[in-house]
Amino acid sequence: MAVYTEVGDADLEDMLKEYDLGAVLSFKGIAEGVENSNFLLRTEAGTFILTLYEKRVAEADLPFFLGLMEHLAERGIRCPLPVKARDGRALRRVAGRPAAIISFLEGVWVRRPQPQHCAALGRALAEMHEAGRDFPRRRANALARDGWGPLFELSRARADTVEPGLEALVAAELAYLLTAWPSGLPEGVIHADLFPDNVFFLKNRLSGLIDFYFACNDLLAYDLAVCLNAWCFEPDNSFNVTKGQALMQAYQAVRPLAADERAALPVLARGAALRFLLTRLYDWLTVPTGALVTPKDPREYLRKLRFHQKVASAADYGLIE
Amino acid sequence: MAVYTEVGDADLEDMLKEYDLGAVLSFKGIAEGVENSNFLLRTEAGTFILTLYEKRVAEADLPFFLGLMEHLAERGIRCPLPVKARDGRALRRVAGRPAAIISFLEGVWVRRPQPQHCAALGRALAEMHEAGRDFPRRRANALARDGWGPLFELSRARADTVEPGLEALVAAELAYLLTAWPSGLPEGVIHADLFPDNVFFLKNRLSGLIDFYFACNDLLAYDLAVCLNAWCFEPDNSFNVTKGQALMQAYQAVRPLAADERAALPVLARGAALRFLLTRLYDWLTVPTGALVTPKDPREYLRKLRFHQKVASAADYGLIE
Repeated sequence: MAVYTEVGDADLEDMLKEYDLGAVLSFKGIAEGVENSNFLLRTEAGTFILTLYEKRVAEADLPFFLGLMEHLAERGIRCPLPVKARDGRALRRVAGRPAAIISFLEGVWVRRPQPQHCAALGRALAEMHEAGRDFPRRRANALARDGWGPLFELSRARADTVEPGLEALVAAELAYLLTAWPSGLPEGVIHADLFPDNVFFLKNRLSGLIDFYFACNDLLAYDLAVCLNAWCFEPDNSFNVTKGQALMQAYQAVRPLAADERAALPVLARGAALRFLLTRLYDWLTVPTGALVTPKDPREYLRKLRFHQKVASAADYGLIE
Repeated sequence: MAVYTEVGDADLEDMLKEYDLGAVLSFKGIAEGVENSNFLLRTEAGTFILTLYEKRVAEADLPFFLGLMEHLAERGIRCPLPVKARDGRALRRVAGRPAAIISFLEGVWVRRPQPQHCAALGRALAEMHEAGRDFPRRRANALARDGWGPLFELSRARADTVEPGLEALVAAELAYLLTAWPSGLPEGVIHADLFPDNVFFLKNRLSGLIDFYFACNDLLAYDLAVCLNAWCFEPDNSFNVTKGQALMQAYQAVRPLAADERAALPVLARGAALRFLLTRLYDWLTVPTGALVTPKDPREYLRKLRFHQKVASAADYGLIE
């Protein structure tokens, strides 16, 4: 939850002069999103989100993110649509930061997802993967397997202060994933961060996907593995196979998994768990005093990783052959 | 900026069952307000704010605050109106906290107030004071003069770490204010925290006052002194007499100040500056690691206090005799 950059009266006024959105009716910082500053903006033309991109988002990647939302929206995926100024461009600068106005999506994110939500997610994820096939831009996954080792080095020396034995466990897992990581699986545009707070529902119907600022090209089934981690565990970190089944059945109704994708799921799930373990570990150890964001406990993902290490096959996730 | 308490799916659903507001369309934490958790709630019936009252707000005071908003709104003051559930009560419990749904006020708070904004504020403040005259409930000011000494004791030992000499300066100022504080001035319901972020404007017209959670019974002119401090200094802490004049002229057009109120303004302004200096000093010294709110620099109010100490009479604020 955060607003990192304040937007002054003149900043907002100057920006809106470039658009045909009428007068400002309301402007409020939103306590959601940990990477950027987000404001709810109501004007005579409607309701929008103003996002200021903070330093964790590379400016060079913004055309990929904004272009992807536009591409997906054109293909019927419910996601925010960048609003173009009169000069035809959506990407601007406000208060010294790159910024964009995007359309506001109605809906509420589900704090405790139920199997029906997992099913709706599975379908939407597969539809997004299909809709992204002909997106022409490319962006490498900065948090893919090759990035995990260097990321770990930043936290390695203090890892055991978070949980005894963590350093050795992560080192062994990294070594395992370097050899076991699959190759040749279908690739495409993935969301890469489709946690419950990025999926909106209206009366239990999925109303949209948001926050495409980790989107990249990578293995499609890895995106599913991220969702298995983020949606199908209970608060006590036990895996709920009913939710896993709902997620994967709905996904496969749109895009059936190939045999090698199914076989690779346990490894991909370990990789996804490690990726979030490592970023949370880094944030946990480096969050400054007075930070606007409370870091999330990395041990949640350590427990998920340990679960995946014991999985024999994708059937353990509820995947029906 | 803060959301201290998470509201679960069931929490929100259970609460809304008690109201006739239709289905939820959107629900987002707002990064404004430092005392409570605020959410923007859109339902089929309209747009609202859900506030969860956190521990700094005494539950026993809530009927005063909610009753005051209702009282003022009935008298034409533009302020949030508590929304009553079907049982006729606005005050509920959500996620273990006292909570209320209030109406949403359109408008934007002004980051850099200009003289025209100060004038609009002065008029609205006086109208609020008039409208509050027949409000039957009473609430003592917990941060009135008698509270400043005990508050100072909590920070006293570390005050000089913030600015050398601060301890002695505050001690002397407290002693001065104990003898110089006026008596017999007109009292009534005051807002007590009418900073720019609590005053909304639409196209430069004042559209409403919010955040009545410091409101109490105290000297009416003290409320004006709080506004002088909060609205009429420049970012370099110089006093802008044009803004002071605009504020007080507009106030007096609705409620003329009595001679003893005018004479007391410099002392009241010193007291108001000290009150915010002391709460900011306390927050500055005690804000925990990982806090959701960045504490404000107490030295801003030290500089304002030093200005008021040199003021000869209310004419220095722009008050025309």
